[in-house]
Amino acid sequence: MSQITVVKVGGNVVDNPALLARFVKDFAALPGQKILVHGGGKEATRLSAALGIETKMIEGRRVTDRETLDVVTMVYAGLVNKRIVAALQAAGCNAIGLSGADAGVITSVRRAPNPVDYGYVGDISRVDSTQLAAMLAAGMVPVFCAITHDGAGTLLNSNADGVASAVAVAASTVAPTTLVYCFEMPGVMRDVADPTSVIPRISREVYSQLRADGVVNKGMIPKIDNAFRAVESGVESVVIKSAENLCGDIGTTIK
Amino acid sequence: MSQITVVKVGGNVVDNPALLARFVKDFAALPGQKILVHGGGKEATRLSAALGIETKMIEGRRVTDRETLDVVTMVYAGLVNKRIVAALQAAGCNAIGLSGADAGVITSVRRAPNPVDYGYVGDISRVDSTQLAAMLAAGMVPVFCAITHDGAGTLLNSNADGVASAVAVAASTVAPTTLVYCFEMPGVMRDVADPTSVIPRISREVYSQLRADGVVNKGMIPKIDNAFRAVESGVESVVIKSAENLCGDIGTTIK
Repeated sequence: MSQITVVKVGGNVVDNPALLARFVKDFAALPGQKILVHGGGKEATRLSAALGIETKMIEGRRVTDRETLDVVTMVYAGLVNKRIVAALQAAGCNAIGLSGADAGVITSVRRAPNPVDYGYVGDISRVDSTQLAAMLAAGMVPVFCAITHDGAGTLLNSNADGVASAVAVAASTVAPTTLVYCFEMPGVMRDVADPTSVIPRISREVYSQLRADGVVNKGMIPKIDNAFRAVESGVESVVIKSAENLCGDIGTTIK
Repeated sequence: MSQITVVKVGGNVVDNPALLARFVKDFAALPGQKILVHGGGKEATRLSAALGIETKMIEGRRVTDRETLDVVTMVYAGLVNKRIVAALQAAGCNAIGLSGADAGVITSVRRAPNPVDYGYVGDISRVDSTQLAAMLAAGMVPVFCAITHDGAGTLLNSNADGVASAVAVAASTVAPTTLVYCFEMPGVMRDVADPTSVIPRISREVYSQLRADGVVNKGMIPKIDNAFRAVESGVESVVIKSAENLCGDIGTTIK
């Protein structure tokens, strides 16, 4: 196999029909083997509200009780995933929509209830690269939502960024892999007010300097830390760029 | 490849946790390559009601407007499909949940709005046996819900019995295929009140006689007609049996 690109796209794109249509066209046009990981967007919150289920978020994570697990399974693995798959198929891309339970690709472990009980939330423990490789070899383009399973029959709600990085690490055992995080900005910027200030490349040395200079803000630090962890685990490079510029050169490459 | 078994299971099993758990165990134990097709059950009607969407059925078919399409996509392709897949994985069966859009396996054509406008309802036009064969060869067990797509980006609600028979016909180009319809009774019966009156085998000749004698009732005629059509299209045999007896011998074989 030649090269695999794993793309993570978030709720801001998934929730916006015009952005999603453009993204689907661009993703379908990406050369080589590829995998998409999508977030859920606000649809789950809307469905919860319509059903009278209270949405509880702690530090940006959805507390997932039994009813909420059903809601996110319906929305992420059903509605959002199948909409994206149908659109990709129409664009000539042989997408196959998956939760982590499908073909047992992603197993996770339910998070301990202390210090915070998030309910049916799972941290990824294993990605089956053999199954992934079989799909890629058959010319399929896996499209993952962030629903996983514990291997014992229980579905779990996982973090889509975490799914993307775990899938990219597994893919890198099959072929050289690039992980692309679509972002609301054109990349990691020296000055968020200046769209031309995208930092094209961040190495470990550059990162130390950027942190020392206070250029990288609080929100970016965990993202860049995660990117370096993926690179240390075998991913060739991690790119942070705008979903609207998926096929273009602008973005920040971390390696 | 040796032999493929395609099993269709309906809402009566899918809706009942105890029956479903037993069915999952039995299906996982079936030898050889296999494919599952599941109906939706009453969950879609319940979700529609909770969301204030009126459920309209005409001749047993759900009228599928835009909102109802979202509901059935969430329930069939999301909740029900992933629950079954997670349970099968836990039982050691390498299930992969699919709608017809996934890997473009099942394409359908939206039904004409005359004489009855069913909305987003699709009649199956094509099953891609190459994709099916690739999954089977990789040791995966496809689990289909009855959501399909038109290949142009629109999801469609199809009939699960029709999905099962179309998938079985496509599978029969890959390897000899048996199609099993799980039924609420132990098979086609001479006397519905007598559980020992299951007719073990119906040939064309036997069928003519049974109809002439008035033994086969109105509801069974389209089922048996469909079974003969599947056999004429390449399926080795069609078996009608109880879901509770999936691994047993009792049932009616049509060939």
